[in-house]
Amino acid sequence: MSSNPTHITAPDGTPFIEVVREFDAPRNLVFRASTDPDLVARWLGPRELTMRVIEYDVRPGGRYRYVQTAPDGSEYAFHGVFHTVTEPLTIQTFEFEGAPGSVSLESTALEDVGGRTRMHHNAVFPSVAARDQAISSGMERGITDSMDRLGELLGSGAVRQRG
Amino acid sequence: MSSNPTHITAPDGTPFIEVVREFDAPRNLVFRASTDPDLVARWLGPRELTMRVIEYDVRPGGRYRYVQTAPDGSEYAFHGVFHTVTEPLTIQTFEFEGAPGSVSLESTALEDVGGRTRMHHNAVFPSVAARDQAISSGMERGITDSMDRLGELLGSGAVRQRG
Repeated sequence: MSSNPTHITAPDGTPFIEVVREFDAPRNLVFRASTDPDLVARWLGPRELTMRVIEYDVRPGGRYRYVQTAPDGSEYAFHGVFHTVTEPLTIQTFEFEGAPGSVSLESTALEDVGGRTRMHHNAVFPSVAARDQAISSGMERGITDSMDRLGELLGSGAVRQRG
Repeated sequence: MSSNPTHITAPDGTPFIEVVREFDAPRNLVFRASTDPDLVARWLGPRELTMRVIEYDVRPGGRYRYVQTAPDGSEYAFHGVFHTVTEPLTIQTFEFEGAPGSVSLESTALEDVGGRTRMHHNAVFPSVAARDQAISSGMERGITDSMDRLGELLGSGAVRQRG
């Protein structure tokens, strides 16, 4: 594909990051790939990092925590809680343990577009500076990798409707 | 007192509301008044509303829900989850059930200033429009009432160190 299918918007002077991406898969499978921890571990984060899920309790009030390990052995841990969990809309908090106290709120809306799925992912940070810090830490590449890997996972046939 | 001791800032074009208020009480009592549901019910919200706590599970991943009833019987329900719960810093999600899907993230930092307590409360909304909508719904008066009522409750001697 000649252009990046992941559209990332982060207007200057705002605390927002918005991501839009379409997947050639029905919404229930995109939802499943986003909420089953074994599947999430296969696409979330930059390609070269390995993800280990410590906890992933997908329900309102449920907590999650995971650790991503780089080839040089450095570890990056993240945690948060789920506020809303429905197939069209998930809302959760997000904290990088390397920047404790800077908590963002993420919402992921899945729109059915004729059998394909358009994901609208929005993150809002507690300040513009915190948003800028996240971007300068390489978050945009992490998002692009994640979306590409999710597309590949969905295309591989590994994500099936649960029993 | 001649001026409002609650300082509310909500810059145009941002999704933020910031509140600063000092209380003539030690931090542990302000924390207790903010986390004990029986005490929270005595100060949170506009004066003329009665608060009924349905659930108030103050721990990371704990959920809360409460209903405020106006003199004419109308009810306003709110819920969310706690992300961080420590005496100096509490972070939680917040959703008014009358505007479902518009979830904000609130942090409350309690600063010890020589035995008094300075509260820094920050809310960030998922969009500038959602923040503006909250303000136009009367949120600022609700905040001022809440802070005054919390000050009165702390001054009444009803909040004591646990055990």
